Amino acid sequence: MIGRRRGASTTKDQILEAARHAFAERGFDKTTVREIAAMAGVDPAMINHHFGNKEQLFLAALDAPVDPRLYVEQVLTGSREDIGERLLQTMLTVWDSPVGTAGVTLMRTGLQHEWGAKLLREFLLNRILAPVMRELHLPEPEARWRSTLLASQVAGLIITRYVLKLEPLASAPRQDLVAAIAPTLQRYLTGPIPPPAL
Amino acid sequence: MIGRRRGASTTKDQILEAARHAFAERGFDKTTVREIAAMAGVDPAMINHHFGNKEQLFLAALDAPVDPRLYVEQVLTGSREDIGERLLQTMLTVWDSPVGTAGVTLMRTGLQHEWGAKLLREFLLNRILAPVMRELHLPEPEARWRSTLLASQVAGLIITRYVLKLEPLASAPRQDLVAAIAPTLQRYLTGPIPPPAL
Repeated sequence: MIGRRRGASTTKDQILEAARHAFAERGFDKTTVREIAAMAGVDPAMINHHFGNKEQLFLAALDAPVDPRLYVEQVLTGSREDIGERLLQTMLTVWDSPVGTAGVTLMRTGLQHEWGAKLLREFLLNRILAPVMRELHLPEPEARWRSTLLASQVAGLIITRYVLKLEPLASAPRQDLVAAIAPTLQRYLTGPIPPPAL
Repeated sequence: MIGRRRGASTTKDQILEAARHAFAERGFDKTTVREIAAMAGVDPAMINHHFGNKEQLFLAALDAPVDPRLYVEQVLTGSREDIGERLLQTMLTVWDSPVGTAGVTLMRTGLQHEWGAKLLREFLLNRILAPVMRELHLPEPEARWRSTLLASQVAGLIITRYVLKLEPLASAPRQDLVAAIAPTLQRYLTGPIPPPAL
């Protein structure tokens, strides 16, 4: 919802809100466009008109609450030596908010379906990590290597904290996670990492 | 299959082999006991006799190729300062082998279903991590905190390398991953990590 509320809620917003709830509650496969239309109090044709099909609606529903550019800017503002900490703080703040529920659906769908994995790869690499890596001005192969190492720790934290809910990690205050995990992200981004032999 | 071949293949082995293929190819939900029975060339009643139900068969199928005790022993043999590296080497060797295919199914199922998440938590925490943590002789709350931090990097590496297949991480030689990621695991296990405020 962040950065989206301008005046009265539009039909599109109502549809997106309903879609986020439905996808988060029941997963992609079990949710129908008809159902979302009923929840939003609109005709199913309106959904097709605004979003095309269910997959495009899903993407829009995931996208809507998080404008990655907003967060990426926040991560990039400050010293290069603290970028791991800012990235983790930002990521945890977003995921600990209601937005995280839609995120769990994204992870689940991304891990279940081939198209979902594509969507998740696209989202993670091109919309979140690429702008961060650009700011670090690294040569391309090194940037890709470091960004996938980063993704391995970020994705794992999301899985263990929000999907598998491993304790005590699932209930740990953000500052404890930052103290433990930010150094890992910082090292993957700017620390001494041997380049891959590939 | 490791440590399992003693003499001729038994009916149980044939069923497990068929189950691994079927679950890996089509996932848990779309696989039927009847289908596995047909693949194994046995009567469905034989499966119920040997394994009970589909969930128990799934667990047996996942369990069969990996005897965690064997690998845990390997990880624990050697100096405390290299335990992160041995853990990662062992994990990558297992996952890069055909066993990894069954592992991907375990991850997918664990992330999709509540009972799958339970199974995965149980497997990861109690059968893999608990014996490793016991060997480190840490006080209980610290051991659990460190083991879930470890799980966050291990699960994330599995997800990004074997499920999402993010490149270059997915095709990177094992020694490159070990050089980059073993220090993370070592730090989570024995390095200076502040205890959680919980």
